[in-house]
Amino acid sequence: MNFDEEQVISEITSIFSKSNSSNPQVIVGIGDDAAVVATDQHSVITTDMAIEDIHFKREWSTAYEIGSKVTVANLADIYAMGADPRYLVVALTLTGNEELSWIKELAQGIADTAAKSDAVVVGGDLSRAKSIMISITAIGSSRLHITRSGARVGDSIYVSALPGWSRAGYEVLSRNLTLSKVFERALTQFKSPELLPSLMRSFKSAHSLCDISDSFMEQAEQMSRASAVEFEIDIKKFERAEGFADLAAVAHAIGCDVWDLVLAGGEDHVLLATGVNLPGICIGRVLEGSGVKVLEMKKAPDTWRHFN
Amino acid sequence: MNFDEEQVISEITSIFSKSNSSNPQVIVGIGDDAAVVATDQHSVITTDMAIEDIHFKREWSTAYEIGSKVTVANLADIYAMGADPRYLVVALTLTGNEELSWIKELAQGIADTAAKSDAVVVGGDLSRAKSIMISITAIGSSRLHITRSGARVGDSIYVSALPGWSRAGYEVLSRNLTLSKVFERALTQFKSPELLPSLMRSFKSAHSLCDISDSFMEQAEQMSRASAVEFEIDIKKFERAEGFADLAAVAHAIGCDVWDLVLAGGEDHVLLATGVNLPGICIGRVLEGSGVKVLEMKKAPDTWRHFN
Repeated sequence: MNFDEEQVISEITSIFSKSNSSNPQVIVGIGDDAAVVATDQHSVITTDMAIEDIHFKREWSTAYEIGSKVTVANLADIYAMGADPRYLVVALTLTGNEELSWIKELAQGIADTAAKSDAVVVGGDLSRAKSIMISITAIGSSRLHITRSGARVGDSIYVSALPGWSRAGYEVLSRNLTLSKVFERALTQFKSPELLPSLMRSFKSAHSLCDISDSFMEQAEQMSRASAVEFEIDIKKFERAEGFADLAAVAHAIGCDVWDLVLAGGEDHVLLATGVNLPGICIGRVLEGSGVKVLEMKKAPDTWRHFN
Repeated sequence: MNFDEEQVISEITSIFSKSNSSNPQVIVGIGDDAAVVATDQHSVITTDMAIEDIHFKREWSTAYEIGSKVTVANLADIYAMGADPRYLVVALTLTGNEELSWIKELAQGIADTAAKSDAVVVGGDLSRAKSIMISITAIGSSRLHITRSGARVGDSIYVSALPGWSRAGYEVLSRNLTLSKVFERALTQFKSPELLPSLMRSFKSAHSLCDISDSFMEQAEQMSRASAVEFEIDIKKFERAEGFADLAAVAHAIGCDVWDLVLAGGEDHVLLATGVNLPGICIGRVLEGSGVKVLEMKKAPDTWRHFN
């Protein structure tokens, strides 16, 4: 053991507690049996975990990046309901071989990423286990909520940003490629995807909304099925998106098809939305029918799997 | 792999979803990016996990018992704030060597135990890992909340039931003793502690309240410190509690001091409360001063540790 359990709890608590006391909505913060927080009439709840060697590798990512990434995954699910993240609880297992400084960085990555979305960690649990596991539950508040089933015929289809970067980063790392400047954005998006709260919040007038962390195609299919409509996707519109030429260059350098990255990549915390006059990139339209039709697509994209 | 991941998700979802559709407070249940639920002005949030070989052993407990126990731990923390449990989310890791029937039993243990407290599982996450881990977050609703810091001079001190049974069960199992009828209650309380919602809810007029899962002495010390008062505990009052003679018989049979079980046992989801005319067992009084004074106690009790 490189640390003492009580010391770890005290250090983590201190990192998370800072934002408890300054938040008037946190009535009882970390330290009692449970936290007490102010909630609206409706709350949104989601949970998402990250396991070492399944979702992250310590050789690839810093503790700060790992903490930030699992937090982003939770926050994105709250935004994907049209809600605002408010509170997080963190269950953490450690093997006993981690340095205290690594653990503190992990907690700081979680705390800082939560703070960017005005969310705060109000509780947690710590245990020993055979591998490192970070399980976060996020609670958000919503006056409205936007599900996957609200897409209407006539809606335009949008993504909040170009997907594919995260998988590109994963491919670079797993193929052990020589790092070059062209890979930088891909690596960042894989290790520590950025979530822009203002962009995420700007989809509140969407008719249908979800996070495409399981890949664009999979989520588009789910949404079209849940809404009982057809999605017509025009890949030419992806080509005009910011960064597409750079992503295509990365795809070329790693020897894969850019459309496998864009349409089937996964782990991008990008929103998929339907509606009228939404921000982001308009990539198609909602028609009567069923399924997802991709215009001018020659082959079906490969699907993404976690690395274990 | 004894199962297919999609099949596991579908089976678990089906077990948990039953109570989603019949609950008018669940606006969006399992299946979207996040659940949407009705909440009061204040919500209570806690998280508690169980790891194989740290918190449970598959040789000792059935899947149903394991699921039930980790759920009880979460529900008890909600009750320990004077609140009522409402919603749970469950993050589960599996090694891939479990039978589907085992996994379904685990989920059923969680679902049934939640239902007894009118709580419902509204979401979850599933991943592979090196060991089985069940991480639950519970969300409760409270008009009021009762912390550890409200004990007042003149209050009586209560426990909702006699503690010690859980550790007694652990000692029986870990010493590999021949099972006999005298151990039955201890084994049940260790493997699958019972939570009586009506009893847990009857402490809402307490001035100070907590769950003594970390052991009676530890929690009494925390509460007296948080409230800046002295706790005077009369162990003779424990002796008059229902079941004390049986617990003493178990202690004798396993060769340990009954007070190590009662005062330092841990993992009992019993409430410790201060106030006036509360239910449960009155075991002392709150005085001016600090610390916990145990009347007629000859030695300090040993402290409990998890088995790893």
